[in-house]
Amino acid sequence: MEKGISKAVIKRLPRYYRYLGELIDDGVERISSNELSERMQVTASQIRQDLNNFGGFGQQGYGYNVAHLYQEIGKILGLDKTYQMIIIGGGRLGQTLANYTKFEKRGFQVVAIFDVDPELVGKEVRGIEVHLMEELEDYLKTHKIDIATLTIPKAYAEETAMRLVEGGVKAIWNFAHTDLHLPEDVMVENVHLSESLMQLSYNIHWHETHKS
Amino acid sequence: MEKGISKAVIKRLPRYYRYLGELIDDGVERISSNELSERMQVTASQIRQDLNNFGGFGQQGYGYNVAHLYQEIGKILGLDKTYQMIIIGGGRLGQTLANYTKFEKRGFQVVAIFDVDPELVGKEVRGIEVHLMEELEDYLKTHKIDIATLTIPKAYAEETAMRLVEGGVKAIWNFAHTDLHLPEDVMVENVHLSESLMQLSYNIHWHETHKS
Repeated sequence: MEKGISKAVIKRLPRYYRYLGELIDDGVERISSNELSERMQVTASQIRQDLNNFGGFGQQGYGYNVAHLYQEIGKILGLDKTYQMIIIGGGRLGQTLANYTKFEKRGFQVVAIFDVDPELVGKEVRGIEVHLMEELEDYLKTHKIDIATLTIPKAYAEETAMRLVEGGVKAIWNFAHTDLHLPEDVMVENVHLSESLMQLSYNIHWHETHKS
Repeated sequence: MEKGISKAVIKRLPRYYRYLGELIDDGVERISSNELSERMQVTASQIRQDLNNFGGFGQQGYGYNVAHLYQEIGKILGLDKTYQMIIIGGGRLGQTLANYTKFEKRGFQVVAIFDVDPELVGKEVRGIEVHLMEELEDYLKTHKIDIATLTIPKAYAEETAMRLVEGGVKAIWNFAHTDLHLPEDVMVENVHLSESLMQLSYNIHWHETHKS
């Protein structure tokens, strides 16, 4: 059933999940697609269409059961499981991500950090040990890792990603500012911060040149 | 002319910009849309369509002048200017972003950090001073700030964004995990890291439940 779901819908699901979580915190038990639409500022028909991809969850005239919908979307997003995550790159960004306890609450457990710098080796970030990059292959032989986060310079990103893939890692969270060319069954999610910033500069520039 | 450009095209421009920058580094002076298409793994017709939004830049049968196209896309993205940026939240993420010299090279200059924690006040991150949050209004009276980056808990994000907007800030780079409801002329670019991570867990979960 989930086969034909578009990437656009999947991208919207975490937002539904977040709003439903907030509704639960507010003690709301049921919500109509119209009310949810007002809160989320998307059309009610979009909400109905999106949720219909997964079998609906709503009863005509009765609205959605918030807790149930939250739980079901969580399952679709795979959030009822835990994921073992490693971070490649023990610099500022890698340490910052390792320190996010919020990810752990959602089931993403950072279990190790790897870095080329021998000075960092043996140090701990929130109890998570930094290993030398050379040890990666051995580590992957004895640990099942679901997600590897790349916070290394782009020049080393693809080569490192290939080492991870050869070690059995199937999902890469890529903060290096480059596109990774990897086997088709490997999932890559890019976070390109400077490209996000350029959306702002585009808009600032556009507004300045189109002032009336 | 730029009026009708879709958000989707604008989102793709930084990627063109990046690839063209790499071509320049590699000494490439001209490239056909077919060659660019192979490198970027998008169709040649998409490239032609996208670039036609801005008047084309290509000559039939002659390809694109790489340096010229790079420069023109940079201008469209507003990268021929500099932007004064402040960071609200002097925690790990705020400090990490303040330390990115790469942003500065692109024209995004971090000029101040603000935090509620008096212990941080007066400290410097790469020469950038941390100010007490109470001083924000006074600071904005005497400094023209183009972009404010929010790296604070979501509970304070909207209230803080409103203070920024009242102080004249028109663009917000939002890392707080919430949607900001701000006046229409304020631009917001969200970076929701946990939602990015959920795209990976969705895919891992989907592959596990659809194994043949």
